[in-house]
Amino acid sequence: MFRTHTCGELRINHINQEVTLAGWVQTIRKFGSITFVDLRDRYGITQLLFGEDLNTQLENNPLGREFVLQVKGIVAERSNKNKNIATGEIEINIQSFQILNKSAVPPFTIQDDTDGGDDLRMKYRFLDLRRNAVKKNLELRYAVNRSVRNYLHEKGFMDIETPFLIKSTPEGARDFVVPSRMNPGQFYALPQSPQTFKQLLMVSGYDRYFQIVKCFRDEDLRADRQPEFTQIDCEMCFVEQEDILQMFESMIKQVFKDVKNIDYTDSVERMTWQEAMWNFGNDKPDIRFGMKLTNLKFPAHTFPTKKDISSLIASDFAVFNDAETVVAIAVPGCSEYSRKQTNELVEWAKRPQIGMKGLAFIKCNTDGTYKSTIDKFFTEEQLKAIAQTCNAQTGDLIILVAGPEERTRKATSELRLEMGKRLGFRKDDEFKLLWVLDFPLFEYAEEDNRWVARHHPFTAPKPSDIDIMINNNPVIENPAEYLKHPYANIKANAYDMVLNGNEIGGGSIRIYQKELQQKMFAALGMDAEEQQHKFGFLLGAFEYGAPPHGGIAFGFDRLCSILGGSESIRDFIAFPKNNSGRDVMIDAPSEIDAKQFDELQIKLNLK
Amino acid sequence: MFRTHTCGELRINHINQEVTLAGWVQTIRKFGSITFVDLRDRYGITQLLFGEDLNTQLENNPLGREFVLQVKGIVAERSNKNKNIATGEIEINIQSFQILNKSAVPPFTIQDDTDGGDDLRMKYRFLDLRRNAVKKNLELRYAVNRSVRNYLHEKGFMDIETPFLIKSTPEGARDFVVPSRMNPGQFYALPQSPQTFKQLLMVSGYDRYFQIVKCFRDEDLRADRQPEFTQIDCEMCFVEQEDILQMFESMIKQVFKDVKNIDYTDSVERMTWQEAMWNFGNDKPDIRFGMKLTNLKFPAHTFPTKKDISSLIASDFAVFNDAETVVAIAVPGCSEYSRKQTNELVEWAKRPQIGMKGLAFIKCNTDGTYKSTIDKFFTEEQLKAIAQTCNAQTGDLIILVAGPEERTRKATSELRLEMGKRLGFRKDDEFKLLWVLDFPLFEYAEEDNRWVARHHPFTAPKPSDIDIMINNNPVIENPAEYLKHPYANIKANAYDMVLNGNEIGGGSIRIYQKELQQKMFAALGMDAEEQQHKFGFLLGAFEYGAPPHGGIAFGFDRLCSILGGSESIRDFIAFPKNNSGRDVMIDAPSEIDAKQFDELQIKLNLK
Repeated sequence: MFRTHTCGELRINHINQEVTLAGWVQTIRKFGSITFVDLRDRYGITQLLFGEDLNTQLENNPLGREFVLQVKGIVAERSNKNKNIATGEIEINIQSFQILNKSAVPPFTIQDDTDGGDDLRMKYRFLDLRRNAVKKNLELRYAVNRSVRNYLHEKGFMDIETPFLIKSTPEGARDFVVPSRMNPGQFYALPQSPQTFKQLLMVSGYDRYFQIVKCFRDEDLRADRQPEFTQIDCEMCFVEQEDILQMFESMIKQVFKDVKNIDYTDSVERMTWQEAMWNFGNDKPDIRFGMKLTNLKFPAHTFPTKKDISSLIASDFAVFNDAETVVAIAVPGCSEYSRKQTNELVEWAKRPQIGMKGLAFIKCNTDGTYKSTIDKFFTEEQLKAIAQTCNAQTGDLIILVAGPEERTRKATSELRLEMGKRLGFRKDDEFKLLWVLDFPLFEYAEEDNRWVARHHPFTAPKPSDIDIMINNNPVIENPAEYLKHPYANIKANAYDMVLNGNEIGGGSIRIYQKELQQKMFAALGMDAEEQQHKFGFLLGAFEYGAPPHGGIAFGFDRLCSILGGSESIRDFIAFPKNNSGRDVMIDAPSEIDAKQFDELQIKLNLK
Repeated sequence: MFRTHTCGELRINHINQEVTLAGWVQTIRKFGSITFVDLRDRYGITQLLFGEDLNTQLENNPLGREFVLQVKGIVAERSNKNKNIATGEIEINIQSFQILNKSAVPPFTIQDDTDGGDDLRMKYRFLDLRRNAVKKNLELRYAVNRSVRNYLHEKGFMDIETPFLIKSTPEGARDFVVPSRMNPGQFYALPQSPQTFKQLLMVSGYDRYFQIVKCFRDEDLRADRQPEFTQIDCEMCFVEQEDILQMFESMIKQVFKDVKNIDYTDSVERMTWQEAMWNFGNDKPDIRFGMKLTNLKFPAHTFPTKKDISSLIASDFAVFNDAETVVAIAVPGCSEYSRKQTNELVEWAKRPQIGMKGLAFIKCNTDGTYKSTIDKFFTEEQLKAIAQTCNAQTGDLIILVAGPEERTRKATSELRLEMGKRLGFRKDDEFKLLWVLDFPLFEYAEEDNRWVARHHPFTAPKPSDIDIMINNNPVIENPAEYLKHPYANIKANAYDMVLNGNEIGGGSIRIYQKELQQKMFAALGMDAEEQQHKFGFLLGAFEYGAPPHGGIAFGFDRLCSILGGSESIRDFIAFPKNNSGRDVMIDAPSEIDAKQFDELQIKLNLK
């Protein structure tokens, strides 16, 4: 061992002990004939004092930032104590030192507020990882890992490894593939998830399975996606939805306790998918704040059970009359927004990411009057009625959004989140969990005139919908009337866990009956041959006593980033890739040798 | 929940409780009007009693092996108790039952002694996994995983995930590669180990890292190799060899305690690589038994410090005189082997895997006389002297092996293991750990007239050999005299952990000085450009304060199989591949779509 103690370990009770430390030079400060050095390791920082007697040696062996140093000395009480660090009461009077390795001047400072830009920090990730801010993220990641494992172990789950070299069955996302040298012309795929394997483990009776496991998707990378990502993957036998919800909300509460010391004692709210869309405009609402949507107008088929209140906005205003959907939100305390401020919001809504043509506003003035950008078309009585329906208080600003259903709903949802952020309703240190339930099982794919699985092809319908699925032909005879097809209203036995407006986990009760699984594959446009080729092993397994089962998978990277109060999952991954899927530090991917092409019996076919 | 209890849970104190169980039908036995069913799940087996009143229902819904059943009934005391199972004192008087899923007749029996052959069991692995023998293996695997994690957590190690999509730097084994769609013409590689990443984490100051992680090698598969395998991968900062040995022998002892309830209190033996080769003929000796080799003749350069005793076998016997090496082992108690028995051993040694031309024998008869197959060339006095040198006792059979050094040594080692096995010296339930130390750093590659790293290119030489490495040119001027090159005698700062004759782990203190690492790469025949292309990131990292560090990796599959008393790692992997790298259950690898080729911009180039 190069040390007797770490740099985070020494306290006042160690005074007069002879110690040896090793670590990195954080700072060097010279005061006359003495030199102070802050020595850093994973565990902390310790102040070193080099007296006059070491000056010659220091001159011959000058120290620099990030040098690796081994020192021997005596622990002494500091005259100037530093209350901000755990070792702040002591320093080491150095007797001798040895430079274990030198360092070039780092391309950016190793500090929380570094001067390094994103590209530079990624290229020198091994230096970036030294920064306390990044280290804390990886420590949090390990703490979540440990907490999850302990919880699942207590509950009887077994970690069982599933294979990484599997079969390509593209369905939704693209597979990464791996040419097989021993089977020329054939390829493995890297798993997008261990889905079918964990189901097979249930068929094998393993009862409670988990894995914290890498998964792979070859997708064009949006801002915060990685081609390889980590899932907490779980599956259970002989369960219904309620069992899963209770098991895994308890798990996340345990993580809150272990990692953040938060007692999340509230019961986790639940909401149907339809209520989420109706009240928040999306399926992963941030329920840390209200500002629910008021649906003044909407197409009848999207929310068949909801009451039409469009008479409230009956007028000559063509924009509303022509719109499929008109939605309003009442933003608290913003009735005194200036023209400049509302114009800025209009510009915000017109950006391509949002895509609306404009916004209308009603100010609920503190004097009880109403003032609107659409005064021309609405009487004050009408404005008041709208405001009351929106549950607006005096002092609120009502924002109205109109246009086609899907875009308008999404835009209003984004607007709500944006206003929530601006008004400080979305606090990093407040955590609100939510289960979203009762998703539709299918979506309609217009281009192929067939169904696609909203979750994945192994999700079971609600028990009450099984007969509807079995007893009807999935083929859509009349594309124009797909909404009237019995499959359009089938609900999935699926659930998403949402934390502060982010989907952190999702799962479902699975199909375990061969006939139902075949019906599902058929609905997705797979004929018997394709079913057999891609999923013959699963259909085969379902012939030999498959039990009822279900599970869930959590996005581990995302969960960590939210717990860490960050928007970016990259900050919680030791060696992330950039938006082109490159690791700029090691310069991968890269070209391979002619010999490798030759052995794999493939060649390039560049366009 | 489909159950109130598991099938392994009910005891005598549950009597008269109403319970619901779910599981698989293991056996059905009819006795007159009543039917006994053994219901199985992961946790055990419970006996169900179907009375006469359920006969009509059973006739309408006949049960079969591996059916999934849910039953409701009352716990009752058995008249015929079964002491062999934990639930053997009770049975369930069934009130009602429901078949949750039927099963076709399984292609083999779900029992410890199954009638299924290897191929069938692999194809139906989801059924094979139901067998208790396989389940116990996976439970042991999880127990080892858990034990290792707990130990390393206690010691301050952090689990940090390293990337799977990295850069191809073929060095030794072949990489599996992954074409990058977003970077056409470029490929990722799957990691053969996280070696360089864990070293970067040390450069980043993470101090103690571990991971239980999948690794990949595209090698022709020998009997017990898998293209994907799991490592317990560990690394530490500021350590010397002794620190690693102590940390990790304690870890394995903890695993023995947690998993096998064995108190391994003996200190772990240590042996140099040279002593291992001298006494046992290989670098991973099984030290559960003695039968050490006696080196009657050997080439001077292989064991420069050992005394030449070849005068003992001076005679007219051409086989010995022409041989480079003559090695003997004394096999206890076998002096009365018949001619048939010794002939069988000769045949054994002639098999191509062993490759010897023959064996000679000396019988140390119980009457004190000696009888040998080479009596013609040696006097009884000579035989006696040889026997004494071999430490043979009366009643022993001395086997002599002669030929070229490498083959003869290996053959004698195999012979020793074979005789040890036949004589019952290699017990599954006895465990002997051993550290093998002081390996040569380099091996000589004749075809390229250069050095290859015996361990890997990041292993440091012994501290005392660093100057030899730095101050000499690695180029071998005269291939015939490579043994005289200063690099030939450099020892590695490396260590292997051996358990019962299997290498279960290996590691080293690493190079952390840029200049030394460059010298190492140069010795392996890499010029500066190739060094920069392949390992520029590592050489770069060594410029910014790399600390002394070292680590170890354990073969997790192998460790589990030895602890489980099995020769085959496949029995300890949930979904293994066969010798052609195929998963016969899911039928992978397989062909991919034209669209996939098109997107990846590659095509086949089949020979």
